[in-house]
Amino acid sequence: MGSCAAEITMIIDRLYERVRERGPICLGLDPSEDVYPPGFVGKFGSPAEAALRFCQEIAAATADLVACFKVQIAHFEALGVEGLGAYRDLLRELRKEGHIVIGDVKRGDIASTAAFYARAHLAGEFAADFLTLNAYFGGDALAPFLPYLAAGEHGLFVLVRTSNPSAGEFQDLRVEGRPLHEHVAEKVAAWGEGFRGRCGYSLLGAVVGANRAVLARLRARFPALFFLVPGYGAQGGRAEDVAPAFREGNGAVVVAARSILAAHRGKPQAAERFPRYAREAALAMAADLAACL
Amino acid sequence: MGSCAAEITMIIDRLYERVRERGPICLGLDPSEDVYPPGFVGKFGSPAEAALRFCQEIAAATADLVACFKVQIAHFEALGVEGLGAYRDLLRELRKEGHIVIGDVKRGDIASTAAFYARAHLAGEFAADFLTLNAYFGGDALAPFLPYLAAGEHGLFVLVRTSNPSAGEFQDLRVEGRPLHEHVAEKVAAWGEGFRGRCGYSLLGAVVGANRAVLARLRARFPALFFLVPGYGAQGGRAEDVAPAFREGNGAVVVAARSILAAHRGKPQAAERFPRYAREAALAMAADLAACL
Repeated sequence: MGSCAAEITMIIDRLYERVRERGPICLGLDPSEDVYPPGFVGKFGSPAEAALRFCQEIAAATADLVACFKVQIAHFEALGVEGLGAYRDLLRELRKEGHIVIGDVKRGDIASTAAFYARAHLAGEFAADFLTLNAYFGGDALAPFLPYLAAGEHGLFVLVRTSNPSAGEFQDLRVEGRPLHEHVAEKVAAWGEGFRGRCGYSLLGAVVGANRAVLARLRARFPALFFLVPGYGAQGGRAEDVAPAFREGNGAVVVAARSILAAHRGKPQAAERFPRYAREAALAMAADLAACL
Repeated sequence: MGSCAAEITMIIDRLYERVRERGPICLGLDPSEDVYPPGFVGKFGSPAEAALRFCQEIAAATADLVACFKVQIAHFEALGVEGLGAYRDLLRELRKEGHIVIGDVKRGDIASTAAFYARAHLAGEFAADFLTLNAYFGGDALAPFLPYLAAGEHGLFVLVRTSNPSAGEFQDLRVEGRPLHEHVAEKVAAWGEGFRGRCGYSLLGAVVGANRAVLARLRARFPALFFLVPGYGAQGGRAEDVAPAFREGNGAVVVAARSILAAHRGKPQAAERFPRYAREAALAMAADLAACL
């Protein structure tokens, strides 16, 4: 942390500092058989234990190279109650070690239900620093999360324009001459106005996929929105596609998961060296991004 | 079950039969301090145990009066890992007893992640008969759920037009002269075309709030969409508001939660008699709906 660390209180300022110090990688911890080295699960008592250990080893090998970790809860839900215990333990450990953790839960529901999700994922057992949310329900469904932002210790990334092939099916439909996702971004920016950090960005950011034109347009229109950018690497996005998300090398984090987690594929001694291969992949990604920013 | 029960295999046909036999109530099991009778939680070892027992007692008192149960996972997530154990146990018990259960999870993510949610909530520990889903990601994000529908044993309700005050903020934005939610409904109807049951409805239904005009318009345009209708009762919707969801008294279920769960409020001996009050409230709701259908 820099010399003015004592003044930094809001989590978005901490994230901004991390990007400045460690670069803009957001490492997606998405454990599954698809990314484990050969024979990995068999070493543990259960798939949930294997998932936890895999994430711990990857995190230990890469933490100094990433701005934050994003933990995909779906991978743990698929392992049932024990899997969610692993999710809880992973978030607790990472945050205790001082890492910034995004709980990738993409929840969204009416206000009375959203209040329970907010409690679960910002204050309860599954508390994360940031959460991803889906805004299809509109503003009143976001409202129950906002009291948890007041102390500056939590932030939100709301889905604006995602990175999957069908993303445009609804998100790009034109409303009054502009794509739907831009209307969503406008609302997110408005909801976040009272939550601006010293770094100039708001505690309410936006999920915007690795699409050069979309990122450039939204970056120009919404200077206070910090972007969480999925779609780099295994999903096809290149450094030049994500570059417009940034302003002076900051204001966004770029998600990579499989390209780092499964970097051991086809390499010698993958079973023992997978954390090292993950680290090498993170270094390569950092260099790739640095060349474009 | 009727005499042709042996021929009925698809879950949407089973739901249709239940509506015919027991009426169109979908009882929302949303346990929390807000709906428990006085002193309830103190009787149990933990809030999760209390939540499970409350739902069990309400379900036992009302099962013959409802078409299905909808279990809101957010209320269990807020109780952490033990809460999710209660969610798992509740779903298992209700389904084992032959009840139809909607897992109200409203998940939505890119396809590779959606595959894990599908596994968790249609095949894994948290398996339900139907799931609620959010379609903001578009069709490829729904695709991983469809293989689980092939055997006819599971169905989906996709968010189309919700019942909360801000629902219109995005869902009613006009695209090519029609509201966004109608475009979503069109896609849901198209995705569901290969999954039509004998009753004429598809395994892919739609969540449409208790809004008379919206329901009438969507019912006319989408004859094969079964509707899951929230917003009745505590949320302000009346029987006449939900009536247009139906065709010949079927094709929809109407959600009620708080109005039934907390029917004991201000009544004598609420702590002991809350299941009986819930039953009375369900009977009153059934009569209220029957008068309008």
